[in-house]
Amino acid sequence: MKERILRVNLNTGKLSQEAVPLKYERLGGRALTSRILLDEVDPASQPLSPKNKMILAPGLLGGTTAPCCGRLSIGSKSPLTGGIKEANVGGTAGHLMAQLGIKALIMEGRYSKGKYCVLKVTPGGAQIVPADELGGLGNYKTVEKILDSFRGEGQDKITVISIGQAGEMLMAGASIAVTDRHHRPSRHAARGGLGAVLGSKGVKAIVLDGSTMKEKIPYYHGDEFRQISRKFTQELTETKQVLTKYGTSITLDVSQKIGCLPTRNFSQGQFEGYTQINPQKLYEIITERGGKTTDACMIGCPIRCGNIYNDEKGNYLTSTLQYESIVMLGPNCGIGNWDIIATLNFLCDDYGLDTIEMGAAMGVVMEAGLLQFGDGKGAVELLKEVEKGTVLGKLIAQGAELTGRVLGVKRIPAVKGQSLAAYDPRSLKGTGVTYATSPMGADHTAGNALPGRVGIDQNRHWNLDTLDREDKVELSRDLQIIFTAGDCVGFCLLAGFSVESMKVMAQLIQARHGYSISLEDVLNLGRDTLRWEIEFNRGSGLTLAHDQLPDFLLEEKLPPHNTVFDIPSSELKEVFNF
Amino acid sequence: MKERILRVNLNTGKLSQEAVPLKYERLGGRALTSRILLDEVDPASQPLSPKNKMILAPGLLGGTTAPCCGRLSIGSKSPLTGGIKEANVGGTAGHLMAQLGIKALIMEGRYSKGKYCVLKVTPGGAQIVPADELGGLGNYKTVEKILDSFRGEGQDKITVISIGQAGEMLMAGASIAVTDRHHRPSRHAARGGLGAVLGSKGVKAIVLDGSTMKEKIPYYHGDEFRQISRKFTQELTETKQVLTKYGTSITLDVSQKIGCLPTRNFSQGQFEGYTQINPQKLYEIITERGGKTTDACMIGCPIRCGNIYNDEKGNYLTSTLQYESIVMLGPNCGIGNWDIIATLNFLCDDYGLDTIEMGAAMGVVMEAGLLQFGDGKGAVELLKEVEKGTVLGKLIAQGAELTGRVLGVKRIPAVKGQSLAAYDPRSLKGTGVTYATSPMGADHTAGNALPGRVGIDQNRHWNLDTLDREDKVELSRDLQIIFTAGDCVGFCLLAGFSVESMKVMAQLIQARHGYSISLEDVLNLGRDTLRWEIEFNRGSGLTLAHDQLPDFLLEEKLPPHNTVFDIPSSELKEVFNF
Repeated sequence: MKERILRVNLNTGKLSQEAVPLKYERLGGRALTSRILLDEVDPASQPLSPKNKMILAPGLLGGTTAPCCGRLSIGSKSPLTGGIKEANVGGTAGHLMAQLGIKALIMEGRYSKGKYCVLKVTPGGAQIVPADELGGLGNYKTVEKILDSFRGEGQDKITVISIGQAGEMLMAGASIAVTDRHHRPSRHAARGGLGAVLGSKGVKAIVLDGSTMKEKIPYYHGDEFRQISRKFTQELTETKQVLTKYGTSITLDVSQKIGCLPTRNFSQGQFEGYTQINPQKLYEIITERGGKTTDACMIGCPIRCGNIYNDEKGNYLTSTLQYESIVMLGPNCGIGNWDIIATLNFLCDDYGLDTIEMGAAMGVVMEAGLLQFGDGKGAVELLKEVEKGTVLGKLIAQGAELTGRVLGVKRIPAVKGQSLAAYDPRSLKGTGVTYATSPMGADHTAGNALPGRVGIDQNRHWNLDTLDREDKVELSRDLQIIFTAGDCVGFCLLAGFSVESMKVMAQLIQARHGYSISLEDVLNLGRDTLRWEIEFNRGSGLTLAHDQLPDFLLEEKLPPHNTVFDIPSSELKEVFNF
Repeated sequence: MKERILRVNLNTGKLSQEAVPLKYERLGGRALTSRILLDEVDPASQPLSPKNKMILAPGLLGGTTAPCCGRLSIGSKSPLTGGIKEANVGGTAGHLMAQLGIKALIMEGRYSKGKYCVLKVTPGGAQIVPADELGGLGNYKTVEKILDSFRGEGQDKITVISIGQAGEMLMAGASIAVTDRHHRPSRHAARGGLGAVLGSKGVKAIVLDGSTMKEKIPYYHGDEFRQISRKFTQELTETKQVLTKYGTSITLDVSQKIGCLPTRNFSQGQFEGYTQINPQKLYEIITERGGKTTDACMIGCPIRCGNIYNDEKGNYLTSTLQYESIVMLGPNCGIGNWDIIATLNFLCDDYGLDTIEMGAAMGVVMEAGLLQFGDGKGAVELLKEVEKGTVLGKLIAQGAELTGRVLGVKRIPAVKGQSLAAYDPRSLKGTGVTYATSPMGADHTAGNALPGRVGIDQNRHWNLDTLDREDKVELSRDLQIIFTAGDCVGFCLLAGFSVESMKVMAQLIQARHGYSISLEDVLNLGRDTLRWEIEFNRGSGLTLAHDQLPDFLLEEKLPPHNTVFDIPSSELKEVFNF
C-alpha cells in the first residue's frame, strides 16, 4: 500500500490524496508535523484563524507490530504558547492511521456549512459530514453517538479523535481525545491547546474507519523486522515489570523521594499526604473495586501502563490515571484523595482539557485564595464551571498563566504560556533546562531528566545528582534530541527514550522501509526537527527571551532540599548549540 | 539649579541624588526613560518583578514657561505588552518635577516594610513614608488623604502621582494618575499597565512638594526664550480656538465624518447615536450645568482643552472628558449617553484604569454576549466589578486582549496585547501602520495620521486620502519620528506634532540649555529613541512577528466605506528602515 498525504480543505470541502513528496519520505510523526507547519503555515498567523493548519501524522513505525510505536503526532501553531506545537498520543489512532496508508492528514481552513462537522476517513478516501448535533457534547457522549451510527459493524477497527466542550469554546487548555481499545476517549494529545485549533476549524471529530481495510502494512525485510521486534518486546516485558504492575504512578515514589513532587502550586517538593496516594494504594483500590491495571492503550504494547479506575460501587469512573495527571490534580492542589483525583481526571477527559494545565491552573486559583488548597469537592465544582461556561471556568480552561495573570498571582508555574509538568525543576534541574528551552514550552515529554538519565555520549562521566546544575545543559540538550527523535518514530516515552532504544528504532525503520538508517541518522532527525521548530518559533515571535523559568523558581527555596533553579540564562542559551 | 537624577531603591530604602551622566545630558522625557531602561533593565525580566524599574522624566522643556511643554514621561517594562513602555501625562507633575531639578526619578526594587509606601520628594531630597492606610483607596480618596496631611500649607505647589485599586491589584490595564491644577487625579499616564508596575513596587503615591522651593529654572538665553515662547503661545491661541472651545471632543466630528469612529467593538466606523454625543452637545451640557470648558491641565497652556463635567444637580462628576475616552467608553460600547460616559470615565480615573483599554475590554465583553451593546447601566456595573475584585472585574482590568482570549472572542482589537485607540485603522490607514509597528503596541499617540497630516519632507506630494494605502508606511514612519521627538521635549500632542512645531522646539531647547540644536537633531532624538525601544523589545521577545494588526481588520469590511486594512506585512516591515 502506497503511503499518501490526505489534505482536507474545510473552506471548500475539497479532499485530496497527494503523493508523498521526496522531502517528506523519511519523515514521520513530529518531524513531519513540524516540517509541514514550517513549509505551509505563516508562523506569524493567529493560531485560531483559518490560516493555521493542523497536521496528524503517525510515526515512522506506525501501523507495524513493533512494540510501543503507535503514537500519533498532532501538530499546529499553539493558542497556548503562540509557537509551534506537537502533542502526541497513544490509543488506537496512530496505528490505524498508518494502516490506512495515511502518512499525514492536513486540515486547512474552517468548516462553514454549519457549526461542526465530522471528518470520516476510510480506506477509499474521506468525507466531511455535517455534525451540528454533536455540538456541546463531552468526549464520552460524542464517541458514543458516533459509534452508535455505525451500529456495531466493524467497530473494532474504528478510532474516534474528538474534542469536548473546551475545544468548541476555543480554550487554550483544550485537548484532543483519542479512543482506547475499549472505544473510550481516554487518551489525549493534551498539551498546547490543540483542541481549540480543531474547534476553530469546526471539526468536532475525526473518525478513522478501518472496517473495510484489506491491504496490510508492507515490510521491506519482514523476517528481520519480526525478529528485532520480538526481541525488543521480550526485553521490555522483562525490564518494565514495575511499570506494568503500577503504571506510571510508580514515578510518585521517585518524585517524593528526590523531592521534586509539585505540591500546593509548586511551593513544596514532597507531599505529606503521600501515603494516601502512593502507587501501592492505587493498585489496591483498582484491584479491590474490579478495575483493571495493565490496560494497554495500543495493541502489542508489552508494558500496558494504563488502568481503569472504578468508583466505590464498582462502576467505571475513569481511565487512565497517569503520573502527571495524578500529581497536578492531586498534590499540586493539596489533594490526597484518589476518588477526587479520578473524578477530576474524568471531567478533564470528558470536557477535553489538559490535566496538567488544569491542575496547574487550579493550583494558581488556590494560591489566589479563591479556593483552599486541599478542597477536593471545591476543585470538582471549579472544574465543572468550565462546562457551565462561567468566566472563572473559561479562565482556568485557558491555562495556568492566564489564570495567574488575571487573578494577580505572582507565582505562576509556566514557560511560554504553558504550565510546568509534574516535576519541580529546582530538584530536577535537567528537566528545568528542558522546561525553559524546549520549543514546546514547559514540557516534560520534550526531554525529562529523571534520575539516572544520561545523554548521548555514554562514555562520558555524567553528573547524576539531580540537584546539581553541572552537566544539566548538556543532558537536556541530548535528551531533547533523543526524545524528539523518538517522537518522529511514534515510539512511546514510557518504553524508554535512550541511545539504546534509538539503536533498535534505526534497525526497525530499516527493516520496515528498506533504506539504510543509522543511530546517528535517527538522532539527526531529532536535531533537524528541533531546528525547524525553533525556526518556526522565531517567526512566531518566540525568542531566547522566552527561554526562561518564572522568577519564583530562581528565588524561592524548595523544601526539602532548599534549592533554587540556579542555571543562568547565559548557559540556557547554549542548549541548542549543536 | 543643577539637574540631578534621583534614585530610589525600595528594597533597601536608599535614596541617592546622582549627577547627570554626560550621555543623558541632552535627553529628556521619553528618550531618557527609554534609554535608562535599555541601560539598566534586563529586557527579559518580568514586568512585575523587583528587577523591573520605573522611570519618571520631564521633557527637555519641562518647568519652563514654554506653552504645552509640561508633560511627564513615565517609562517601564509593560505588563500589558511585555515590551518597553512610555506613557506621558499632563497635569502638574512634569513642570514641578523639572522645577525641583529632577531630570529623572528612578525607582528600583520593591518596598518591603509594609504593603505600601508614599515617596515624598522635596527640594532638599526625598523620603519613603509607610502608607498602608492608603491601601484599597481609589485615586480621589488617596489624593484627599495625602493633601489633608499637608493641612493646607503650600498646597498649590503640591502634585500627587498615585495609583488606585487597579494598580494595587497588579492589573495590566492600570494607569498612574497625576493631579490637575485643582488637585484632582484626573490626568493619567494610562497606557500599558504602568499602574501595576508602581503597585508591584509597593508605591501607592509619589508626592512632589514644591512648597519650600526657592531656586528657579535657569535659562541660558532668557530673553530669547521668552520671545520665542510668547510668539508660539500667541500662534497656538489663534490657531487652536476650536480645540479651546470644544476640547478634544471636536475630533468626534472628524472621525464620524471620515468613518473611523470605533463603534460596537470596531464593527462600524460611524455611530448612529452621534447627534446625542457630538461636541456641541457636550459643550451645552457642561455650560448648562455649571461645569467648565477651557480647563488647562498645566499652567501656561493657551489651548486649555480640558473640561469639568458636572452631574444633573451641578455637582462634580468627572474631569476631563477627552476624545479617546468618550469614544471607547461610548460608541465602542454602543453607548450614546453623556452621563454614562462621564460616570465610566470617573470610575476609570478613580480605580486607576486606562479608559481606552477598558472601553475596548467592555466592547469585547459585549461581543462575547455577556452584556448588550448600548447597556450603559450594565457597563457601569461591569466596571464596578473591578473594585469588587470579581473574576470578571479582574479580567476586564487586564485589558481587551486577555478578556477576549478568555471569553473565546475572535475579534479582539489589540496589537502586542494593547488595545487599539479610538480610530479604526481601516479608514485611517496611516494610524493603522502605527498601531501595527509602534514599539508601544497599538497607540495613537505614537504617530496619529489624522486627515491632512504629512511627513517630514514637506515638498513631497503626500497622498492625503486616509482610505488609500499609498504613502502610509512613509507617513507613519515620519509621524512616529516626529511624535517620539515631541515626547522627548515634554510637548503636548494636542498643540500639534509637526515639522514646524519641532523647529520651534529646537529653538526653545537651545535658548533654555545653551547648546546648539537643529530641527534635524530633534528628529534624530526621535529616531534614536525608537531604535533604543526596538532594541529593548527584541530582548523582551517582541519581534517583527508582533508588528501586525489582528486578522479581522484585514478581512472584515468596515462600513460605511467598506474598506479593510490592506497594507501587507512585507511593507510594514519597512517602517523602521531609517
